[in-house]
Order: sequence, then structure tokens, then C-alpha cells
Amino acid sequence: MQFMKRPEPQEGELTTDRIEAFSDGVFAIAITLLILEIRLPHSEASHESLAASLWALWPSYFAYIFSFVMIGIYWVNHHYIFKIYRKTDHGFNLLNVFFLMCISFLPFPTAVLGSHLLDVDEQRTVVAFYVFGLFLPAFSWFLTWIYACFNYRLIDLRLSPKFVRYLTRKYGLSTVIYTFALILALIQPVLGLAIAVGLTFLYLLPSKKPVYVELQED
Amino acid sequence: MQFMKRPEPQEGELTTDRIEAFSDGVFAIAITLLILEIRLPHSEASHESLAASLWALWPSYFAYIFSFVMIGIYWVNHHYIFKIYRKTDHGFNLLNVFFLMCISFLPFPTAVLGSHLLDVDEQRTVVAFYVFGLFLPAFSWFLTWIYACFNYRLIDLRLSPKFVRYLTRKYGLSTVIYTFALILALIQPVLGLAIAVGLTFLYLLPSKKPVYVELQED
Amino acid sequence: MQFMKRPEPQEGELTTDRIEAFSDGVFAIAITLLILEIRLPHSEASHESLAASLWALWPSYFAYIFSFVMIGIYWVNHHYIFKIYRKTDHGFNLLNVFFLMCISFLPFPTAVLGSHLLDVDEQRTVVAFYVFGLFLPAFSWFLTWIYACFNYRLIDLRLSPKFVRYLTRKYGLSTVIYTFALILALIQPVLGLAIAVGLTFLYLLPSKKPVYVELQED
Amino acid sequence: MQFMKRPEPQEGELTTDRIEAFSDGVFAIAITLLILEIRLPHSEASHESLAASLWALWPSYFAYIFSFVMIGIYWVNHHYIFKIYRKTDHGFNLLNVFFLMCISFLPFPTAVLGSHLLDVDEQRTVVAFYVFGLFLPAFSWFLTWIYACFNYRLIDLRLSPKFVRYLTRKYGLSTVIYTFALILALIQPVLGLAIAVGLTFLYLLPSKKPVYVELQED
Repeated sequence: MQFMKRPEPQEGELTTDRIEAFSDGVFAIAITLLILEIRLPHSEASHESLAASLWALWPSYFAYIFSFVMIGIYWVNHHYIFKIYRKTDHGFNLLNVFFLMCISFLPFPTAVLGSHLLDVDEQRTVVAFYVFGLFLPAFSWFLTWIYACFNYRLIDLRLSPKFVRYLTRKYGLSTVIYTFALILALIQPVLGLAIAVGLTFLYLLPSKKPVYVELQED
Repeated sequence: MQFMKRPEPQEGELTTDRIEAFSDGVFAIAITLLILEIRLPHSEASHESLAASLWALWPSYFAYIFSFVMIGIYWVNHHYIFKIYRKTDHGFNLLNVFFLMCISFLPFPTAVLGSHLLDVDEQRTVVAFYVFGLFLPAFSWFLTWIYACFNYRLIDLRLSPKFVRYLTRKYGLSTVIYTFALILALIQPVLGLAIAVGLTFLYLLPSKKPVYVELQED
Repeated sequence: MQFMKRPEPQEGELTTDRIEAFSDGVFAIAITLLILEIRLPHSEASHESLAASLWALWPSYFAYIFSFVMIGIYWVNHHYIFKIYRKTDHGFNLLNVFFLMCISFLPFPTAVLGSHLLDVDEQRTVVAFYVFGLFLPAFSWFLTWIYACFNYRLIDLRLSPKFVRYLTRKYGLSTVIYTFALILALIQPVLGLAIAVGLTFLYLLPSKKPVYVELQED
Repeated sequence: MQFMKRPEPQEGELTTDRIEAFSDGVFAIAITLLILEIRLPHSEASHESLAASLWALWPSYFAYIFSFVMIGIYWVNHHYIFKIYRKTDHGFNLLNVFFLMCISFLPFPTAVLGSHLLDVDEQRTVVAFYVFGLFLPAFSWFLTWIYACFNYRLIDLRLSPKFVRYLTRKYGLSTVIYTFALILALIQPVLGLAIAVGLTFLYLLPSKKPVYVELQED
């Protein structure tokens, strides 16, 4: 990706260094905590062999891998987006805390998915709750973007309006699709999960390079 | 916010870089650990549906969100305050460790609030313990400030005395209000919690810009 | 070790700073989480003395120490290897996320080894699962290296082809030996574990200095 | 404290930046994980009020506070000592991993102390195990120092031999006293714990400034 060098912040503007370092910390911790949610059932309770118990944890492994990839993708996107921000402000800092809260929440639906996916009666609830866990960061991410790009409040002034609209459509569409997957999950759990997973894998493709326009000096 | 550039530390003075990086680490970890305190009751023990169980966890969600916001606010304030410190010393480092100890303690009252808020007999204890958990960082924060600003021990010498008094009043008043909320919680739990929560939300407003006076060169 | 100064990244190339900081975070967290997997059995359940319980946890101590050393070694190697990379790209970032996923997974097989090693019936499963947990990072590490060194895609152009082949052989051989130890563990658990442990201890030796050739200026 | 500026590392020498950042990460995580070891007993199992349960956890609060202070002190000392190192090497890196392993282990004896201190029959075991947990970092710290200062292998060449001997005596004496407290704990638990706690509090005093001698230019 080719980014233009970030403009120097004006006097009195807040730079984004601190918020990036703190966010990176939360990403790294949330992603590593996921493993704590995989737990062997107590050996006294179960009469199966250990191999069978380890095998029966496959929904937990799936949930671990998928949530790990999710958080990894958001980490990459967080870095991508901060390269085209020129500053931050108080409102954005609060929205970013809200976004991090949604990211940090993910280990819980991941644990629920891992421990109850095989319970046929509860599949609908389990999948819908997990897809809701995926929807939350997508939604809060969209909010931060809308806040930042509105009237070029925080983003690089040299970004082309067309590129800004492209990102708005992209992030808005993701939120819409996760909402749709959430509703679908209440009816057809497997299909809802498949759509949410598929959408996430699309994000593994490299992001589009930002497009800049040259600004006239004032 | 407009901050003046921090003065260069004198020879032999301790700079604040390391203490800031370590504190940031503790903030990021404490905030992310909060999610580990939300746990689904064992499915064998309960006869309710998963949806009902997830719903019954709402005090845990509330506690998660509120404690997340609390720690986030302290993180923002920690950065704010370190911009107007000119150095640190051994006593301050110890007080900062005490403050971080209070921040790291928060996940425990949060877990207690989440797991026992709906137990009517224990509501008084639960809420008082949680408000105590909110009081501790406010109190230790006030201590670090008093230590730092006394005779301009550690703070920027260019800060106006009026602004220093303003911060002292602000932090002192917070401690008093949390103490009051703590006592109230023992009598009227809901009211005590409401005051503590309300006070915290006041901190979501942007902090006042520091006011400097020009110093005469010696 | 003597490394040449890394070449300045070309315009539009991704530098490795961010990926290194994030990986360091994951390493530090995964290594510290290991202790959470050591747990005292509930005192009501057991009738032994506390001293006996603490003693009976020796497989957990062994697993803790060995996994700690493992992650420590990978951390050292991660730093070593990044000193001879000149840039990163999207594919490598994804492979690195996969590698970190394998590192973060290690606490789980460690917990299984610690809690079930003394269960004679399950020794085969336990050891094989743990050796599989050691195989995963070795395998994903090998993948990242193959990707990075193929046609000098990401590595320092000044590295001698002989040295690149040496590293390829070294990492490939490790993967092969872990695979062999994994198969052996299914037949002779103790022997399989011994080989995996022995191989790891070889990595405690200092790594070979990189060998550079001088490049002609274009 | 007044430190001389660290000498520039010679070509081919390993600098200490990376090892410091990684160690800081481990310190921050280990110190924050301590709170996870405080857990409320399941409400079904106990018939006491919540207030009584919270009160009965006082050994856990004591263990939390004391271990927090301990790790905080080691973090401060780690920074202090790295200011008088001029480089690191492979052997030191391994010893530092061993030291971090001992620091990361502390949450486990802390949990044991918290959960079993009030069990009169087990007091001897509990206290001895905890003091052993305090002995380990002191011992491994001493090892790293001996390795680093032997023949001025890694330390600043300008340090006065007298000051180096002072630190050797200080760290050696600490190890000896923790060993003594450990043995005493097996006979008189309360006394052994008191000595270990008292020794730790001595470390709250500011460390002595390093003493340098001017070196002749070669």
C-alpha cells in the first residue's frame, strides 16, 4: 500500500500516537486471551477418553481460529485507517474506547459458541449471539469512521472524496451484511454463520490503496 | 487541548517515559481482563434455556461496560496529567504503583457486581463493594496529585496557581462524592450507584485546558 | 551476533515496525498466561495435604517451564529473523497472524499436559497433543520463512544464498523432527517427548551470524 | 538518581532495548493477572452472607497487595540496573528469561496463600511455598547480576569497583535472607513471612546512586 506521509499536526491538535499504542495493547491482549476460553471438561464428570474430549472441543478450536482471524483483521485495519487520519479529538477518543470495548467483548461470544455449538436445541441462540459479537465491532468501527470523515473532521485533507465515499460504502455495507446475518441466524443458524464467516474472509484480501488529490496551498 | 511543550528534565532528574509506558500496559491489560469475569453458568446446573442464561447476565454486561468506561477515563486522565508534569521522583513512583494497584483491583468488584446484583438480600453489600472499588482509584489519584502539586514538586513550573487549585478542587471533590456515594450505598443501594455512575459520566466531558503563566528567567 | 544495518524501505513498501511490536505483545502475553493454567485442585474434593497437592502438580510445573522456554526461544528467533528482513507485505502479515495463533494456542496443550500427564491410560494422547502443540509453531514458522525467502521476496538482498539455504534447512529439519516426534509419541510417549524437548534445548544455543555478500550498485 | 549516559554499543554488540520492552510487557501482565486469583466462593456452596464471604477473602487481599508491591519493586529495579548495563549477550538473555519465568510464577503461590492461609493445618506449607515464590526471583536476579558484573562482562566500564561490590553484597544478602525466611517458615510460619515481608519493604527505599570512576582513554 502506498500512503502519503501524514501531515504534521497543527499546534493544539491531539496526535494519534498514544491512542494507537493503547489500542495495539488491547488488540494484542484480547487476541491472546481467546485461548483461555478453551477448557477441558473435568475428567471426573466425563467418562470418555481424553482423545474423545479433545476431539469434542472442535467448536472451540473453530471459534478460537475464527475470532483470532477477526481480531487480527481489525488490527490490520486499525493501522490502515490511522495512516489516513491527520489528528484525533475528544469525541473520537470516546468512540475508539467504545470500539475497543466491542473488540474486548469478542472472547465471551467465542466461549459461548465453543461450548454450546453442538447443543442442537440452542444452536439458534448460540450462533445469533456469536454473530452479534461480530456485528458489534463492525458497527462501532462504522461509527468511528462516520465521525472521522464527516466534513473531513479528522482524516487527511488530501484524500479524494471518491475514496472517502468508497470506504464509507465498504464499512456501511459490512454493518448491513452483519445485521442481515444476525437476523438470518435466528432462522437458519448455519446460513447466518456462513455469511458472517464469508464476509470476514473477504477482509483477508489486501485493502485498496488510498487515493489522494493534490490540495492547493492556501 | 493545548499543552505547552514539556520542559527538558534537569540533569539527574527522572523522566516520566518509563512510568507512562508501564502504566499504559497495566491500563490496557486491566481493561481487557474485564471480559474474563463474565461467565456462563454451567449448563448442567441450570435448567433455563441458553437465551435466558445470556439474558440473566445483564448485570455482568452493565458492570463490564461501566468498568471499561471507568478505566478508559482514567487512562485518558493519566495522559492528560503527565503532560503537565515536568519530572517524577521515587515517592511519586510508589504512589503511582498504589494507583495502578487500585485500577487493577477493579475487575474483582466488577465480577462481584455482575454475579450478585440480582440477589436482593445482598444488593447493599454488592453495590457498596463496587462503589468502594470506584472510590479506591479516585482516592489514590487524588493522593498522587496532592503529592505532585505540593510546592510545585513535580508539575510544570509554568502552570498558573489558579489552574493548580482548580485541579485540586476537582480531584478532591470527586473523592468526597465517591465517599458520599459509598455511605449512601449502604442505605439506598440504587441511589448510591446512581451517584457514582453519574459522577463518572461527568468525566466523559473533555478536560479543561491547562492555564500557564509566563515565568521570569532567573 | 553481527547484523548489517537494515536497508531503508523503498517508497510504498511496508516496514516491519508495527508487526514486530504487535508480535512482541502477543509473545509477552502468551508467556505470562501460562501460569494461569496451573491450578490447585479444590480442597474439599481432595483428602491429601496441601503439600502433597502442590507436589502432585509437578507435571504442571514441568509444562510451565518448558512452554515458557519454548515461547522465549521463538521470541528471540522472531527478533533475529526480523533483523534480516527488509520489508513485509500483505501475505506475510497474514502468515505472521497464523504463526501467532499457533504461539497463543500453546497454553492449552500445556494445561492438558500438566493436568493429565500422570494419568497412565491417557499418556499417549496427552504427549501427542503437546508435541502437536510444539509442532504447530515450528511448522508455521517454516511457512513464513519459505514465503519470505522465496526469490528474496522480503529478506535482505545482501544475504548470501548459502546462508539462506542454511536457514531453510534448519527450519525445515525442525519441522520434520517435530513431525517424527509426534508420530513416535503415539507409540512411545516418553521417547517422543524426549526428542521434542531435546530439539528445543538445541535452540538455546546462540544462532549463527548471518552471512552477507556485497551487492553491486545498480 | 544520577546516571551517566549509557555508552554507545560497539559494533556487533547486542543492545538492551528489545529485552527491556519485552520484560516490561511481562512485568505489566504478571502484575495485572494477580487480581484474577481472587475469586468469590460459589454462592450455592456457602451459607454465609456475601459481606462475610468478601471479608473472609482478606488473605487474598493481603497476598494481592504484597505481590503487587513485589513485582512493582522488581520492575523499578530492572530499570535501575539496565541503566548501568552497556550491552547484553546470549547468556544474559537466557538468564533474563529465567528471571521472568520466576516473576510470572508469583501469581500461583499468591493464589495458594490467598486461598489457604486461614487453614491452620496447612499454614506451614502455605507460607513456605509463598516465601519460596519470593525467593525464586531474588535468586534468579542475583544470578543475572553475577553473570553481568563478572569481569565487567556487561556492565558500564565506568562503574567504580566499590559500587559493583556493594550491589553484589546487597543482592547476595537478599537471597540469603529469603533462604533463611524459607527455612524459618517451615518452623515458625508467621515469623518467616514477617521477615520476607520486612525485607521487601526495605526495597521501597530509594536505591543508592551509582558511583562512577573516570576511565582513561585507551
